[in-house]
Amino acid sequence: MDAPILDELRRAAGIDAVRVDDASLEDASGDKWFARARPDAVVFGRSTAAIAAVMKIAAREGIPVTTRGAGHGYVGGCVPVRGGIVLSTMRMDRIKEISPADFVAVVEPGVTTGRLQAAARAQGLFYPPDPASLKDCSIGGNIATNAGGPRCLKYGVTRPYVLGLEVVLADGTMARVGGRTHKNKTGFDLVGLFTGSEGMLGIVTEATLRLLPAPPARAVLSASFPDMACAAAAVQAVFAQGHLPSALEIADRFTLEAARRHAGGETVIPPGEAHVLVEIDGQISAVKDEVRDLHGLLTDAGAVSVESANTEEGCEALWALRRTFSSSLKATGLKKLNEDIAVPRGKLVELVRFGEELGRDYGVPVACFGHAGDGNIHVNIMVENPDDPATAAKMEQALDKLFHGVLAMGGVITGEHGIGLAKKRWWPQAVNAGSHELHRRIKTALDPHNLLNPGKFLDG
Amino acid sequence: MDAPILDELRRAAGIDAVRVDDASLEDASGDKWFARARPDAVVFGRSTAAIAAVMKIAAREGIPVTTRGAGHGYVGGCVPVRGGIVLSTMRMDRIKEISPADFVAVVEPGVTTGRLQAAARAQGLFYPPDPASLKDCSIGGNIATNAGGPRCLKYGVTRPYVLGLEVVLADGTMARVGGRTHKNKTGFDLVGLFTGSEGMLGIVTEATLRLLPAPPARAVLSASFPDMACAAAAVQAVFAQGHLPSALEIADRFTLEAARRHAGGETVIPPGEAHVLVEIDGQISAVKDEVRDLHGLLTDAGAVSVESANTEEGCEALWALRRTFSSSLKATGLKKLNEDIAVPRGKLVELVRFGEELGRDYGVPVACFGHAGDGNIHVNIMVENPDDPATAAKMEQALDKLFHGVLAMGGVITGEHGIGLAKKRWWPQAVNAGSHELHRRIKTALDPHNLLNPGKFLDG
Repeated sequence: MDAPILDELRRAAGIDAVRVDDASLEDASGDKWFARARPDAVVFGRSTAAIAAVMKIAAREGIPVTTRGAGHGYVGGCVPVRGGIVLSTMRMDRIKEISPADFVAVVEPGVTTGRLQAAARAQGLFYPPDPASLKDCSIGGNIATNAGGPRCLKYGVTRPYVLGLEVVLADGTMARVGGRTHKNKTGFDLVGLFTGSEGMLGIVTEATLRLLPAPPARAVLSASFPDMACAAAAVQAVFAQGHLPSALEIADRFTLEAARRHAGGETVIPPGEAHVLVEIDGQISAVKDEVRDLHGLLTDAGAVSVESANTEEGCEALWALRRTFSSSLKATGLKKLNEDIAVPRGKLVELVRFGEELGRDYGVPVACFGHAGDGNIHVNIMVENPDDPATAAKMEQALDKLFHGVLAMGGVITGEHGIGLAKKRWWPQAVNAGSHELHRRIKTALDPHNLLNPGKFLDG
Repeated sequence: MDAPILDELRRAAGIDAVRVDDASLEDASGDKWFARARPDAVVFGRSTAAIAAVMKIAAREGIPVTTRGAGHGYVGGCVPVRGGIVLSTMRMDRIKEISPADFVAVVEPGVTTGRLQAAARAQGLFYPPDPASLKDCSIGGNIATNAGGPRCLKYGVTRPYVLGLEVVLADGTMARVGGRTHKNKTGFDLVGLFTGSEGMLGIVTEATLRLLPAPPARAVLSASFPDMACAAAAVQAVFAQGHLPSALEIADRFTLEAARRHAGGETVIPPGEAHVLVEIDGQISAVKDEVRDLHGLLTDAGAVSVESANTEEGCEALWALRRTFSSSLKATGLKKLNEDIAVPRGKLVELVRFGEELGRDYGVPVACFGHAGDGNIHVNIMVENPDDPATAAKMEQALDKLFHGVLAMGGVITGEHGIGLAKKRWWPQAVNAGSHELHRRIKTALDPHNLLNPGKFLDG
């Protein structure tokens, strides 16, 4: 990047806000997925005005701008594949307001999700979205990816919690969309359009978020079943009795066996070949009664073990068991290709069988676990050496088959991580021609020169 | 409309699907708001293919097309102000599927909301959105307006229940957006973009809707308070104790007094100058406990009367009391200008005082009641003769002041009815320049010749 442009960026954003040193460029070149690409410069936006000024320079010069939050995405969504500027919003990290009267929070995009949750909780309020990386990920990133998490079964993903946004557009102009009220029918749903748009339509510089009253009690049940069909039937039985748990997680045999081999001595893995975790929340006595009912229901559904907890420590211990699954898969020494597909809720058993078959066909283990209630299952293809070219080629074929099968079931190739680079190759199969054309028209309307996060799913 | 065009429309949609008789044109000229305008023809779409063919003819000829559902809107949203074709989707009224396994319904747009709810309930499933006109209004209209209702406090408005849409676009092409899964991160939120777009971006021809497990129990509490400030404090106390009722309604003194004067002998109106209705749902024992807790809470908050019910009949009786408010306002003989503004939740008392002041300033009663939990209050300006030119002019001034005040409180001019024609005059104040420009760009990208529902909020 030419020195005069860098000087101009420094005048716009502040002298120490523009970085071109190796370490900064390297830090800004990727996320939790493997792909990396270096930008020409990293700019730390510290105000809406500064970001607007940077964007005006980029627009005039035709420089690509890839917005970056905490960098905890799983699909390479913030990799600056066309170079240019990485614009970090992590220094805009103020919680501007938490209003117990209005049940809203007003935050800058660099606030981490966990910090917002804690600040809300301290005032008896509740920000439900709970992506796994909530201690590290940012609200800006959550909005860009419309992040989910286990709790979105009952509470929904990030979108329903975004009431209003301040956004800098590709031409450096600014817009405020939505507002501060819990209901709003003023015009099109532009808040929704920006939420989940993976940095391709605008740069979020402030968010007004909806908060709920904090439920006074929670409880967790952990149950194991002889097989996956039995566990899936138990999941359906939970819904059939009118329960709407805050989370409903499932794990398969391979996952459980990995946990038995690799989990530390303190964690006792229950018997059986499938595991179900149910979390509920609400009023104290209601949660107590519901635990009793669910305990009976899971037992009747054929559980070989059921444990429950209604203290914070007890609940966390059962979630620790659930989290063991993911770390145990890592401890197998195999690399997991984690595909966050989602299928219609009734296709759970079919999906797990499809995964087993896929594993047999390609000679690799396939571990399925995740958000059963949503049909959003993480299908983990376990590979010894994914960097080996022959293995990589074979795994691409396996992914072709996986996504083809999931789409044929009426499923989707991504339930919560987004398309990014990881799913880009399958985008043409994932949407019909009419939908692709709509995406293209909206992108062109908002970013005619394709400056914002170029090289992603709309660029061939 | 020229005879050759009408003939072509008949070939596209069916001979008896195209109407130009007086009665049909009159039927299609308005909704529940006062404005009316006659179209040149009414076309009843009976299939996606037929609607696409009609739209292709309209696009070629430059004929405006205003989509019409059941015609139960409150803001003149479906009034064909530029003539042309009114396209009714009411003959596409099949419930194609209700899947208890996948927790989805697939419906055509002409299905009435109440019919879908009943069909879901028959299978133990629950479609939560409950606009007041649910027995008459259509899912297509609900999607076009992103309809709300009392229950959206807990369950959200229509948007969260729309998983996928089939849409015919302004050029007669077709797109499917979203899908059948409960979670989906494939691309931009186009489902959200069409939902609530008031017929200006496309014509919905099929919707895949999310269903929930039906909660086994419900209960309603009806409480009255000495004044509005006390009632508003009770509302905040409900939230402060971690309750998230399915509905939380409030009514003011004028409304209660109208009910005392005009309600039938069977309805006993409680004492006090403000009324609060709370509905909860969930598991049987949980609801029982929560009623007891809320009864105590409302009493402690200063209620002068509290009644509760947990049977279907009992709940409906308390809701009948609530509905009395609306009919009693009608029975005053005054016409109500019903403005569905929303304010931040903490501004409830301020809003009601503002309404009283407005009434004094303009010499008319103002009755406030509605969805307290959402801050979505119906401000009803009660007018003797709204058709009298002098009165009409004065009321326009009163509305100017109302909307100005609401926007100054951080509120919005429409919480659930939409802009339509009724709020069109205040659109420029309701959105900032950046947001208006975004609306314009999206409209131009999807409907460059302004064929779909022209003459509404984007046309000056």
